[in-house]
Amino acid sequence: MRILHTSDWHLGRQFHNVSLLDDQRHILDQIVAVVRDRKADVVLVAGDVYDRSVPPAAAVELLDETVHRICAELKVPMILLAGNHDGPRRLGFAARQLAGAGLYVAGPLWSVPCPILLKGTSGELAFYPIPYADPATVREVHGVEVADHDSALAYLLGRVRQDNGPTRPCVVLAHCFLAGGEPSESERPLSIGGAEQVNPEHFRPFAYAALGHLHGPQWRGAEHIRYSGSPLKYSFSEERQRKSLTLVELDGSGKAAIELIPLKPRHDMRSLEGNLVDLLAAGKNDPQREDYLLVRLTDRHAILDPMGKLREVYPNVLHLERPGLMAGAERVQVGRDRLKQGELAMFEDFFEQVTGDQPSAEQRRVVADALDRLHREEF
Amino acid sequence: MRILHTSDWHLGRQFHNVSLLDDQRHILDQIVAVVRDRKADVVLVAGDVYDRSVPPAAAVELLDETVHRICAELKVPMILLAGNHDGPRRLGFAARQLAGAGLYVAGPLWSVPCPILLKGTSGELAFYPIPYADPATVREVHGVEVADHDSALAYLLGRVRQDNGPTRPCVVLAHCFLAGGEPSESERPLSIGGAEQVNPEHFRPFAYAALGHLHGPQWRGAEHIRYSGSPLKYSFSEERQRKSLTLVELDGSGKAAIELIPLKPRHDMRSLEGNLVDLLAAGKNDPQREDYLLVRLTDRHAILDPMGKLREVYPNVLHLERPGLMAGAERVQVGRDRLKQGELAMFEDFFEQVTGDQPSAEQRRVVADALDRLHREEF
Repeated sequence: MRILHTSDWHLGRQFHNVSLLDDQRHILDQIVAVVRDRKADVVLVAGDVYDRSVPPAAAVELLDETVHRICAELKVPMILLAGNHDGPRRLGFAARQLAGAGLYVAGPLWSVPCPILLKGTSGELAFYPIPYADPATVREVHGVEVADHDSALAYLLGRVRQDNGPTRPCVVLAHCFLAGGEPSESERPLSIGGAEQVNPEHFRPFAYAALGHLHGPQWRGAEHIRYSGSPLKYSFSEERQRKSLTLVELDGSGKAAIELIPLKPRHDMRSLEGNLVDLLAAGKNDPQREDYLLVRLTDRHAILDPMGKLREVYPNVLHLERPGLMAGAERVQVGRDRLKQGELAMFEDFFEQVTGDQPSAEQRRVVADALDRLHREEF
Repeated sequence: MRILHTSDWHLGRQFHNVSLLDDQRHILDQIVAVVRDRKADVVLVAGDVYDRSVPPAAAVELLDETVHRICAELKVPMILLAGNHDGPRRLGFAARQLAGAGLYVAGPLWSVPCPILLKGTSGELAFYPIPYADPATVREVHGVEVADHDSALAYLLGRVRQDNGPTRPCVVLAHCFLAGGEPSESERPLSIGGAEQVNPEHFRPFAYAALGHLHGPQWRGAEHIRYSGSPLKYSFSEERQRKSLTLVELDGSGKAAIELIPLKPRHDMRSLEGNLVDLLAAGKNDPQREDYLLVRLTDRHAILDPMGKLREVYPNVLHLERPGLMAGAERVQVGRDRLKQGELAMFEDFFEQVTGDQPSAEQRRVVADALDRLHREEF
């Protein structure tokens, strides 16, 4: 069975107010070509198909076109998993009707595991999609006491093992943050306050775990417990990542051979540092000058319209930093670090500035709960 | 061929800040029962399936459940048409995949007519859905000069006749305002400034025209050119309408026998008029006191918390008018009449109050165009 594993398409995403839809169309064309050329038996998209629960209509149209090319034209089945960015009920519309066409959509969390049985060259294989669900949803749907993401996923995977039986190899799809995983700046935390980490060992018994959420390709615990990563860079923090698809060849005994297939974006995303004159000179001969760029200008003097000047050479400069201008260059870094801390830390700073006091444990909990609810609400 | 024609479900609609979802679920249960009991061969929903282009997730779930019951459990095909309230690209997601399961969704306007061929007891019949499209969209998709809804629909129906040929009977679905039709207050105008009307004669050549948009059941031009009306009342102006489904029996020659099947809402929608004491006394023995009510109190004196007092007896009073309190009772009527005039008239009033002048024809046109664009924009 030849499985093409991808995730975190984030269709409809904007980056610094630029729509990435044409870049996404470009990369989906490559994915379709790989499905065809490498004769995949199934395509797995392990969550965050869309960037938000109500995606723009043009993103819906792009997904429509893509699933048609894969499921109808190439006749390759697809499994789409709802991630933390997707609206599970919207994504899951008419899922039972779509299954007949080879399009399997796992929207809201199931109350009973429902494997998808697919035929490959080496016989039938069961796929168990586990849509993203926070601990509160798992408690509600299953009536079990799970306090955090780790125990929630341990419970769900237990249900899968029970359903599948102890001997038959099977594949699980999940959308989660494995402990030890390397995050990027473009992922939205699954939980405020740190209870999002899941032990990779829970996935060890399965033939393959196709994971989504982290945007860099990586594995944790064992090579078959794996993130494909997003097909595109969605933040400058990913500039050194090599985006790819994961092609998994599972033999009859459930042993996985893994290959990464690199993807080539329409625009790369990277940062440049230097003074204006040097950068402009270098840019004239840069074949990649249409990349999406973050530019750090080291000039220490004021410059009239530096963005306009840069864009004459590099048309897609998206963000400009001027560390050379700051009284202390470290101030920029502090600002960016603070943004990375997340909302709870920002609330604590604010609370302290207003009241002169630290928030109590109880007050922290109330705010963390509210932030959690906000993040998982689907309207 | 036995066709069940309905339209204007407006799933997800709110009325006076009350969600109608439970009422909609109740009426969809009845529709499913009619499909089963009357052995319909197909169910047509002639537009405005949802109330807005981004419906609430719970409305998506309700439609999911309903199509599953009809298409999968009863094995009766359905045709869903995008109306002016629907987002055509969202509604049309994976339409080509859904067709195999007997769920035919007509989202964005086609560039080439695409009939749905269904088998009934008297052979095969072609259904041509024409999704709602304003003249600008028809111009863009077809490259033809059509100035208004009438010429746009005449053009599209001409394309259908050409595709179907002159002799074979066929059914069309459309979402439009037929000239002479009786509107209700719950429909959103298709065009600001009056160019929305379509000549019913365009539909005469077809075996049956299943129309949506007007919320009262009615026909225009000939009995087979027909609005089913909405299954529920969506404004107090509809209080005297009898909501129903339209069951159409088409024989082999294309002759239609028509029957209206009444629907019974969970809450009726009606208005009451009288003084507080009388209404409260009457309400105690009113078996329908849970209806959605507009109450007009005729008392001429001030009353402390009249809404609270009324709701103790009639829990679902949604709107209260106090014509007895007004200096001139006609003022209330003026206010409601103004709301009915629509946005362009309100703009003219505003313009005159601010500038002391009437807007010029050119100024009127600019505003009318802007309003039109706003109404048809899908984000």
